[in-house]
Amino acid sequence: MSFAAFASRLAEAAREVTLAAAERTVEDKSKGGSFDPVTDADREAELAMRALIEAEYPAHGINGEEHAARPARCAYQWSLDPIDGTRAFICGLPSWATLIALLEEGEPILGVIDAARLDELYLGDGKHAWLNGAPIRTSACRTLAEARLSTTDPFLFGAVEGMRFERLREKARVTRYGLDAYGYARLAAGQIDLVAESGLKPHDWQALVPVIRGAGGVVGDWQGGADLSAGQILAAATPELFAAAVAVLAD
Amino acid sequence: MSFAAFASRLAEAAREVTLAAAERTVEDKSKGGSFDPVTDADREAELAMRALIEAEYPAHGINGEEHAARPARCAYQWSLDPIDGTRAFICGLPSWATLIALLEEGEPILGVIDAARLDELYLGDGKHAWLNGAPIRTSACRTLAEARLSTTDPFLFGAVEGMRFERLREKARVTRYGLDAYGYARLAAGQIDLVAESGLKPHDWQALVPVIRGAGGVVGDWQGGADLSAGQILAAATPELFAAAVAVLAD
Repeated sequence: MSFAAFASRLAEAAREVTLAAAERTVEDKSKGGSFDPVTDADREAELAMRALIEAEYPAHGINGEEHAARPARCAYQWSLDPIDGTRAFICGLPSWATLIALLEEGEPILGVIDAARLDELYLGDGKHAWLNGAPIRTSACRTLAEARLSTTDPFLFGAVEGMRFERLREKARVTRYGLDAYGYARLAAGQIDLVAESGLKPHDWQALVPVIRGAGGVVGDWQGGADLSAGQILAAATPELFAAAVAVLAD
Repeated sequence: MSFAAFASRLAEAAREVTLAAAERTVEDKSKGGSFDPVTDADREAELAMRALIEAEYPAHGINGEEHAARPARCAYQWSLDPIDGTRAFICGLPSWATLIALLEEGEPILGVIDAARLDELYLGDGKHAWLNGAPIRTSACRTLAEARLSTTDPFLFGAVEGMRFERLREKARVTRYGLDAYGYARLAAGQIDLVAESGLKPHDWQALVPVIRGAGGVVGDWQGGADLSAGQILAAATPELFAAAVAVLAD
């Protein structure tokens, strides 16, 4: 089995847990009480994926959001975020996703963004990207005036970042909020043109990179570099749009 | 045929147009050019619904967002918004909806919020509400600290409204943006607890009222009254939560 096929199988295993939990959430009779389906589903979905990896690739490392890291005994490591977008999940909104990345010597070489509730599995290897198996491309958008912008929460930025993001928002054609990883998925599919965020953890962005680059997009930091380790992310449909956004966001 | 069954048939007719347009949008090869599937789909979907109303109820009035009003020759009038949430639509996001209301002597007595892409049809008659035919209820949330809040765009408010909304946002448990009518649909289904917006037109809110009230929720204006004509809307899962929000939002 190829790594890509195996990553899709991981997503399938996570779906069995997360979709059932989403259903239970809808049926929640406690209505705001202590019932916490998202935490349970997060843990269970990660365990389901871990079990498959340990059986198929016992030497691979695993970094999951919910359980202790398993060190690698080879060059490969899996990065798992069973439910990215837990705030959407608890509001019964469909934009949460399962994130899966395969890293080789620390570099993400394969990424999955699985929007399970929408039955949309985005997969990329840095050279190509697919939505449910069909090739996808970012849009041809080159200017901020035409750009459909996304960020998860405009109130999460610090003061300086917030001021810069506000300038970007004022120049963009339309801005969407609250999408978490799904914003990057729509960017890879050519329907959002620009995403700017900060405060992302490795689990949040490692799966995104091979999908965005595979779809022909550009992903880097707000200074125009390629260092994502500080969690400051800028993704754009084209190099021209990336440069235009850096001109607004950089120091 | 009951009015409720007929309204569902209208939603079905709109879906044939809007879902095909959503598919075409995804396949848009012009990528940011002049192609405008949302306007075409808006117009076509409204025409499809109008044709059904004119054939079944020739004396009923029709107020649609895209075409000239047809005056009523009886007490009944239909209010139609074929695609509420066009910004979501053009970004390939699933939260847009078709809104259908039936008014009797100017009062909405039946409402449909059809989230076509999600295959979720919400219907209410002011006493009961259903999601795809199954009864739904708002949550039991009574306090701002527990509330899941939604508003379409935090940057759309005027200065005073914006300041008041900001106070509400700071007190709420979690805030979601960009949902348009879908936020009220999730409120009716018990997964969002509070929605505060302004600047809504009659087409935007008439369909919401019978759904929210039918699900046991409260809908009124920011002053705690029931006059929605100014387009300032506050919807809450419970009377207690409504009152708590009014205490923050009112003059």
